[in-house]
Amino acid sequence: MPSHPEPTGLAIGIDLGGTRIKAALVDRADGHLLQRALRPTEDGDWQDGEPRFVHHVAELVAELESASGQTGLPVGLAAPGLAAPAGNAITWMPGRMHGLEGLDWSACLQRPVRVVNDAQAALLAEVAFGAARGLGDVFLITLGTGVGGAVWSGGRLLTGARGRGGHLGHISLDWQGPQDVFHTPGSLEFLLGNQTLSARTEGRFASTLDLLAAVRAGVPKALALWGQSMRVLAVGLSSLINVLDPELILLGGGISEGAGEDLLIPLQSELDACEWRPGGHAVPVQLATAGEWAGAQGAAWQA
Amino acid sequence: MPSHPEPTGLAIGIDLGGTRIKAALVDRADGHLLQRALRPTEDGDWQDGEPRFVHHVAELVAELESASGQTGLPVGLAAPGLAAPAGNAITWMPGRMHGLEGLDWSACLQRPVRVVNDAQAALLAEVAFGAARGLGDVFLITLGTGVGGAVWSGGRLLTGARGRGGHLGHISLDWQGPQDVFHTPGSLEFLLGNQTLSARTEGRFASTLDLLAAVRAGVPKALALWGQSMRVLAVGLSSLINVLDPELILLGGGISEGAGEDLLIPLQSELDACEWRPGGHAVPVQLATAGEWAGAQGAAWQA
Repeated sequence: MPSHPEPTGLAIGIDLGGTRIKAALVDRADGHLLQRALRPTEDGDWQDGEPRFVHHVAELVAELESASGQTGLPVGLAAPGLAAPAGNAITWMPGRMHGLEGLDWSACLQRPVRVVNDAQAALLAEVAFGAARGLGDVFLITLGTGVGGAVWSGGRLLTGARGRGGHLGHISLDWQGPQDVFHTPGSLEFLLGNQTLSARTEGRFASTLDLLAAVRAGVPKALALWGQSMRVLAVGLSSLINVLDPELILLGGGISEGAGEDLLIPLQSELDACEWRPGGHAVPVQLATAGEWAGAQGAAWQA
Repeated sequence: MPSHPEPTGLAIGIDLGGTRIKAALVDRADGHLLQRALRPTEDGDWQDGEPRFVHHVAELVAELESASGQTGLPVGLAAPGLAAPAGNAITWMPGRMHGLEGLDWSACLQRPVRVVNDAQAALLAEVAFGAARGLGDVFLITLGTGVGGAVWSGGRLLTGARGRGGHLGHISLDWQGPQDVFHTPGSLEFLLGNQTLSARTEGRFASTLDLLAAVRAGVPKALALWGQSMRVLAVGLSSLINVLDPELILLGGGISEGAGEDLLIPLQSELDACEWRPGGHAVPVQLATAGEWAGAQGAAWQA
C-alpha cells in the first residue's frame, strides 16, 4: 500500500505538451474529469516577455476554477524535462519548450504549484485511479516515438536526486551499440523506439504501426523483427525487475496501445525465458489504462 | 536527507555469511563497534532439529548482550538471499545456507529481529556511518565473485515488493549474451564477475586480482581486457544512473578494494563518454569505506 497520504477534493491538473495544453478539473476521490479545456502550446511564441504558454495556462486555471465555484484550488502541472523533486519548476529541458527551463510556476500562477515530469504524471494517474491503484511498487514504460518511463517504489514516486529517476528507455541492452541522445550505448529506446525504426530496417518500415500491420499480415521479415523487439523488451523488463522488484509492470504509449495482445502475448513468452522468478512468482505485465488525460489527472493528484 | 528516523543507542548486528558469523555490539550514534565476536557458520550441520548457525547466533547475542550490561537490545541480522521487506526472515535462498529459508528469526531469538539482505546491510552501513552519510539517493555495487548491489532511494532502502530490489549485477548489457544464474542474458555479473573470468579469458586469468597484477605489469592482453571491463562497468552505471538518479555511487567488494585507482581512473574516463549529465553534472563514484564489519553495522542500524 502507498505510504503517500491520499489527496482529496478538487484540483486542477495541467498537461503541458509540445503541441497542446490539456487542463482538467479533477475530483481526486476517483479521478473523474469534471471539466476539460484545451489550448495550443505555441512553443516559441512569446507575450509580454514570457512564453505564450504561460498565459494560456493561467487562463485555463482561471477558467476551470471559475467553473468549479471554488477558489484557491491546488494546481499540478506535468511537462517534459526534468522536474525538481517536490518542486515548482522544470529544471532541464533543452532544445524545445522554449522558456520552460527554470520557470517558477508558483510565481507564474501566484499560488503553490507542484510540477512533475509528464511520464511521472502518467504513472501517478495509474497509481491513483488506474491499473496500479493501491500498489506500492510498479513501473510504467511508454513505447512511442521514444521510450519513456517512471517508477513508483515503496509507495512513492522515485524521482532520484534531480528528478531524473525512471528514465527507463535509457538503459543499455548492448554495451557496444550506437549511443542514443543521452549517450547510452544500445539503449532500449534506440533498439525499440519509433524514431530509429526506419534506420534500423533500412527504410522498410516507417513506423512501428506499419511494422505491426505487416506482422498481422504475416510478412516474414516483419515477424522476425517483431520477435526480436519482443526479446529486447523482455530482457529490458527483466533487468528492471531485478533492480526495482515491482508488483506490476504497465506498458503505455502509442505502440503498446496499437499492438495490444500482439505485444503482450509474445512478450510474455520471452519473459518466460529471461525473467528471474524467485519462488516461481512472475511479475504481471499489463497495458496502461489511463488514457490521454492521464498527465492532467496525475498532475492534479500530486498537487 | 534521509526521511528515515535516525536510530540511536546500542544494538546487536549479526552478519550471517556462508563461512563465518560476525556479530557486533554497535553504538548506533556513530557506528562504533564496542565488542565483536565470531563463530563458524557450519552450513549444513544441524543441532536439535535446527541449523547449527541458529544456536551460534543465539549464543553470540547472549554473549554481546551480557557484555553490554543491558537487556532486550534490538537485534538486526544480515544474510544472503531475499529478505521480506521490513520482516524477520529470509524468504528465498536456494542451494546453500540450509534451513535459512523461511526461518523466523524473531521466534528463534525470542525478541523482534529485523532481517536484511547482506548487500543491503553493507549499503546501510555506508548511509549510516560511511561515505554516503546523510545522503538521500545512493547505490552500491559490489564487485567480487559475483556482482551485487543495493539501492538507497529517497532516504529509504529500495527493497521492492519482495526484497529483490537492488540486484544490480543482474541487469543485461548484452541482450544476445549467455544467460546468468538468474536467466539474465549478458548480465553485468556475467561480463565482470570473478566467477566467469577464467572462462571469459580461456583460462589465462584465474581471478580478477591476477588480471589486475598483469594490468599493473603492462601486459597488453590484460590491458585490453581491463579497458573493456571498465567500459562495460561504465555503461552499466550509466544505465542505473538513468533509472535511479543517485547523488553518489559506491563501489565495494574485493575487486574494487584491490584495484583502487586502477579502477576509478579508467572508469571515470569511460563514464565521460556514456553518462547522461544534465546541466553538466556528473555523479561522483567512490570506493565504499565501511570495511568487513559493514554487514553487522548495517544490520544493527536498521534493527
